[in-house]
Amino acid sequence: MNETPTVDSFDLDHTKVVAPYVRLAGRYRGPNGDVVTKYDLRLVQPNRAEIPTAALHTIEHLLAGYLRRSLPGATVVDASPMGCRTGFYLTVLGDPADVELRSGFEAAVRLVAAHEGEVPG
Amino acid sequence: MNETPTVDSFDLDHTKVVAPYVRLAGRYRGPNGDVVTKYDLRLVQPNRAEIPTAALHTIEHLLAGYLRRSLPGATVVDASPMGCRTGFYLTVLGDPADVELRSGFEAAVRLVAAHEGEVPG
Repeated sequence: MNETPTVDSFDLDHTKVVAPYVRLAGRYRGPNGDVVTKYDLRLVQPNRAEIPTAALHTIEHLLAGYLRRSLPGATVVDASPMGCRTGFYLTVLGDPADVELRSGFEAAVRLVAAHEGEVPG
Repeated sequence: MNETPTVDSFDLDHTKVVAPYVRLAGRYRGPNGDVVTKYDLRLVQPNRAEIPTAALHTIEHLLAGYLRRSLPGATVVDASPMGCRTGFYLTVLGDPADVELRSGFEAAVRLVAAHEGEVPG
Protein backbone atom coordinates (compact mmCIF):
# COMPACT_ATOMS: atom_id res chain seq x y z
CA MET A 1 0.00 0.00 0.00
CA ASN A 2 1.80 3.11 -1.20
CA GLU A 3 1.14 6.63 0.05
CA THR A 4 -0.72 5.23 3.02
CA PRO A 5 -2.11 7.96 5.21
CA THR A 6 -0.99 7.75 8.82
CA VAL A 7 -3.18 5.72 11.14
CA ASP A 8 -2.33 6.61 14.72
CA SER A 9 -3.01 3.24 16.31
CA PHE A 10 -0.70 1.44 13.87
CA ASP A 11 2.24 3.21 15.52
CA LEU A 12 1.24 2.31 19.06
CA ASP A 13 3.55 -0.22 20.70
CA HIS A 14 0.95 -2.61 22.07
CA THR A 15 3.53 -4.28 24.30
CA LYS A 16 4.08 -1.03 26.25
CA VAL A 17 0.51 -0.54 27.43
CA VAL A 18 -1.16 -2.18 30.42
CA ALA A 19 -4.93 -2.73 30.23
CA PRO A 20 -7.35 -1.61 31.46
CA TYR A 21 -6.63 1.98 30.43
CA VAL A 22 -8.03 5.03 28.68
CA ARG A 23 -5.77 6.62 26.07
CA LEU A 24 -6.28 9.72 23.97
CA ALA A 25 -6.22 8.28 20.43
CA GLY A 26 -6.80 11.43 18.42
CA ARG A 27 -7.97 15.02 18.52
CA TYR A 28 -9.35 16.75 15.42
CA ARG A 29 -10.24 20.41 15.03
CA GLY A 30 -12.82 21.52 12.46
CA PRO A 31 -12.45 24.66 10.34
CA ASN A 32 -14.78 26.53 12.73
CA GLY A 33 -12.89 25.45 15.84
CA ASP A 34 -15.00 22.58 17.17
CA VAL A 35 -13.00 19.65 18.50
CA VAL A 36 -13.66 15.94 18.03
CA THR A 37 -11.83 13.62 20.40
CA LYS A 38 -11.25 9.90 20.06
CA TYR A 39 -10.30 7.58 22.90
CA ASP A 40 -8.91 4.07 23.12
CA LEU A 41 -10.91 2.41 25.91
CA ARG A 42 -8.92 -0.75 26.50
CA LEU A 43 -10.42 -3.47 28.64
CA VAL A 44 -8.05 -6.41 28.19
CA GLN A 45 -4.37 -6.68 27.26
CA PRO A 46 -3.65 -6.63 23.48
CA ASN A 47 -2.18 -9.87 22.11
CA ARG A 48 -2.81 -11.60 25.45
CA ALA A 49 -6.56 -11.82 25.75
CA GLU A 50 -9.71 -11.02 23.80
CA ILE A 51 -13.33 -10.52 24.70
CA PRO A 52 -15.58 -13.26 23.26
CA THR A 53 -17.56 -12.04 20.26
CA ALA A 54 -21.03 -12.33 21.80
CA ALA A 55 -19.92 -10.62 25.02
CA LEU A 56 -18.32 -7.80 23.02
CA HIS A 57 -21.59 -7.29 21.15
CA THR A 58 -23.55 -7.16 24.39
CA ILE A 59 -21.10 -4.69 25.99
CA GLU A 60 -21.37 -2.54 22.83
CA HIS A 61 -25.15 -2.24 23.17
CA LEU A 62 -25.00 -1.52 26.90
CA LEU A 63 -22.13 0.98 26.61
CA ALA A 64 -24.07 2.89 23.95
CA GLY A 65 -26.64 3.95 26.51
CA TYR A 66 -24.54 4.05 29.65
CA LEU A 67 -21.70 6.10 28.14
CA ARG A 68 -24.19 8.74 27.00
CA ARG A 69 -25.59 8.84 30.51
CA SER A 70 -22.16 8.92 32.20
CA LEU A 71 -20.71 11.64 29.98
CA PRO A 72 -23.42 14.31 30.07
CA GLY A 73 -20.92 17.04 29.20
CA ALA A 74 -19.89 15.51 25.87
CA THR A 75 -21.78 14.47 22.76
CA VAL A 76 -21.09 10.77 22.25
CA VAL A 77 -20.85 10.19 18.50
CA ASP A 78 -19.68 6.59 18.43
CA ALA A 79 -18.46 3.78 20.69
CA SER A 80 -17.48 0.77 18.64
CA PRO A 81 -15.60 -2.42 19.45
CA MET A 82 -12.09 -2.91 18.13
CA GLY A 83 -11.56 -5.65 15.59
CA CYS A 84 -8.97 -7.18 17.93
CA ARG A 85 -11.72 -7.46 20.58
CA THR A 86 -9.63 -5.94 23.38
CA GLY A 87 -11.62 -2.72 23.81
CA PHE A 88 -13.60 0.08 22.23
CA TYR A 89 -12.98 3.31 20.37
CA LEU A 90 -15.03 6.20 21.68
CA THR A 91 -15.54 9.33 19.58
CA VAL A 92 -17.05 12.44 21.16
CA LEU A 93 -17.85 15.89 19.81
CA GLY A 94 -16.14 18.11 22.36
CA ASP A 95 -12.97 17.97 24.37
CA PRO A 96 -13.83 16.76 27.87
CA ALA A 97 -11.26 16.96 30.66
CA ASP A 98 -9.25 13.75 31.00
CA VAL A 99 -10.50 13.13 34.52
CA GLU A 100 -14.11 13.62 33.47
CA LEU A 101 -13.73 11.20 30.56
CA ARG A 102 -12.02 8.59 32.68
CA SER A 103 -14.52 8.74 35.52
CA GLY A 104 -17.40 8.67 33.04
CA PHE A 105 -16.00 5.58 31.36
CA GLU A 106 -15.47 3.87 34.71
CA ALA A 107 -19.02 4.67 35.73
CA ALA A 108 -20.35 3.31 32.43
CA VAL A 109 -18.36 0.08 32.77
CA ARG A 110 -19.71 -0.39 36.31
CA LEU A 111 -23.26 0.11 35.02
CA VAL A 112 -22.62 -2.43 32.24
CA ALA A 113 -21.32 -4.95 34.79
CA ALA A 114 -24.33 -4.37 37.05
CA HIS A 115 -26.88 -4.46 34.22
CA GLU A 116 -29.72 -6.89 34.64
CA GLY A 117 -32.55 -7.70 32.31
CA GLU A 118 -32.87 -7.22 28.59
CA VAL A 119 -30.10 -5.82 26.44
CA PRO A 120 -31.41 -2.83 24.47
CA GLY A 121 -31.27 -2.59 20.68
CA MET B 1 -32.33 0.71 32.07
CA ASN B 2 -34.30 3.86 32.96
CA GLU B 3 -33.78 7.26 31.37
CA THR B 4 -31.85 5.66 28.54
CA PRO B 5 -30.61 8.23 26.08
CA THR B 6 -31.68 7.59 22.51
CA VAL B 7 -29.38 5.47 20.41
CA ASP B 8 -30.27 5.92 16.75
CA SER B 9 -29.41 2.43 15.56
CA PHE B 10 -31.63 0.77 18.17
CA ASP B 11 -34.65 2.20 16.36
CA LEU B 12 -33.61 0.98 12.92
CA ASP B 13 -35.75 -1.85 11.59
CA HIS B 14 -33.01 -4.22 10.50
CA THR B 15 -35.47 -6.28 8.46
CA LYS B 16 -36.22 -3.32 6.18
CA VAL B 17 -32.68 -2.73 4.91
CA VAL B 18 -30.91 -4.59 2.12
CA ALA B 19 -27.13 -4.87 2.36
CA PRO B 20 -24.77 -3.76 1.01
CA TYR B 21 -25.69 -0.14 1.64
CA VAL B 22 -24.49 3.17 3.03
CA ARG B 23 -26.83 4.89 5.49
CA LEU B 24 -26.52 8.22 7.24
CA ALA B 25 -26.51 7.19 10.90
CA GLY B 26 -26.10 10.56 12.57
CA ARG B 27 -25.15 14.19 12.07
CA TYR B 28 -23.87 16.31 14.96
CA ARG B 29 -23.19 20.05 14.93
CA GLY B 30 -20.68 21.57 17.34
CA PRO B 31 -21.24 24.90 19.12
CA ASN B 32 -19.01 26.62 16.53
CA GLY B 33 -20.81 25.10 13.56
CA ASP B 34 -18.56 22.22 12.55
CA VAL B 35 -20.37 19.06 11.55
CA VAL B 36 -19.52 15.47 12.43
CA THR B 37 -21.20 12.80 10.34
CA LYS B 38 -21.57 9.12 11.07
CA TYR B 39 -22.38 6.45 8.51
CA ASP B 40 -23.56 2.87 8.68
CA LEU B 41 -21.47 1.03 6.07
CA ARG B 42 -23.26 -2.28 5.85
CA LEU B 43 -21.60 -5.12 4.00
CA VAL B 44 -23.80 -8.13 4.78
CA GLN B 45 -27.44 -8.54 5.74
CA PRO B 46 -28.19 -8.11 9.49
CA ASN B 47 -29.47 -11.27 11.21
CA ARG B 48 -28.72 -13.30 8.07
CA ALA B 49 -24.96 -13.32 7.79
CA GLU B 50 -21.89 -12.14 9.64
CA ILE B 51 -18.30 -11.53 8.65
CA PRO B 52 -15.90 -13.96 10.38
CA THR B 53 -14.01 -12.31 13.22
CA ALA B 54 -10.52 -12.57 11.72
CA ALA B 55 -11.71 -11.27 8.33
CA LEU B 56 -13.47 -8.36 10.03
CA HIS B 57 -10.25 -7.45 11.83
CA THR B 58 -8.28 -7.55 8.57
CA ILE B 59 -10.87 -5.43 6.75
CA GLU B 60 -10.75 -2.94 9.65
CA HIS B 61 -6.99 -2.47 9.27
CA LEU B 62 -7.16 -2.16 5.49
CA LEU B 63 -10.17 0.18 5.50
CA ALA B 64 -8.35 2.48 7.93
CA GLY B 65 -5.83 3.41 5.27
CA TYR B 66 -7.92 3.04 2.14
CA LEU B 67 -10.90 5.07 3.43
CA ARG B 68 -8.57 7.95 4.28
CA ARG B 69 -7.17 7.76 0.76
CA SER B 70 -10.59 7.45 -0.92
CA LEU B 71 -12.20 10.31 1.00
CA PRO B 72 -9.66 13.11 0.61
CA GLY B 73 -12.30 15.76 1.19
CA ALA B 74 -13.25 14.54 4.67
CA THR B 75 -11.31 13.96 7.87
CA VAL B 76 -11.78 10.31 8.78
CA VAL B 77 -12.01 10.13 12.56
CA ASP B 78 -12.97 6.49 13.03
CA ALA B 79 -14.01 3.40 11.10
CA SER B 80 -14.82 0.56 13.45
CA PRO B 81 -16.51 -2.80 13.01
CA MET B 82 -19.99 -3.35 14.39
CA GLY B 83 -20.35 -5.84 17.20
CA CYS B 84 -22.86 -7.75 15.05
CA ARG B 85 -20.09 -8.14 12.44
CA THR B 86 -22.25 -7.04 9.51
CA GLY B 87 -20.46 -3.79 8.71
CA PHE B 88 -18.64 -0.72 9.98
CA TYR B 89 -19.47 2.65 11.48
CA LEU B 90 -17.58 5.48 9.85
CA THR B 91 -17.25 8.84 11.60
CA VAL B 92 -15.92 11.85 9.69
CA LEU B 93 -15.33 15.46 10.66
CA GLY B 94 -17.15 17.29 7.89
CA ASP B 95 -20.32 16.76 5.90
CA PRO B 96 -19.37 15.22 2.55
CA ALA B 97 -21.93 14.97 -0.23
CA ASP B 98 -23.76 11.62 -0.22
CA VAL B 99 -22.47 10.71 -3.67
CA GLU B 100 -18.89 11.50 -2.66
CA LEU B 101 -19.14 9.40 0.49
CA ARG B 102 -20.67 6.49 -1.32
CA SER B 103 -18.18 6.46 -4.17
CA GLY B 104 -15.31 6.85 -1.71
CA PHE B 105 -16.54 3.88 0.31
CA GLU B 106 -16.97 1.78 -2.84
CA ALA B 107 -13.45 2.67 -3.95
CA ALA B 108 -12.07 1.77 -0.53
CA VAL B 109 -13.87 -1.59 -0.51
CA ARG B 110 -12.47 -2.37 -3.97
CA LEU B 111 -8.98 -1.52 -2.77
CA VAL B 112 -9.47 -3.77 0.27
CA ALA B 113 -10.61 -6.64 -1.98
CA ALA B 114 -7.63 -6.14 -4.30
CA HIS B 115 -5.10 -5.77 -1.49
CA GLU B 116 -2.09 -8.05 -1.67
CA GLY B 117 0.79 -8.43 0.72
CA GLU B 118 1.05 -7.54 4.38
CA VAL B 119 -1.81 -6.08 6.37
CA PRO B 120 -0.67 -2.83 7.99
CA GLY B 121 -0.81 -2.18 11.73
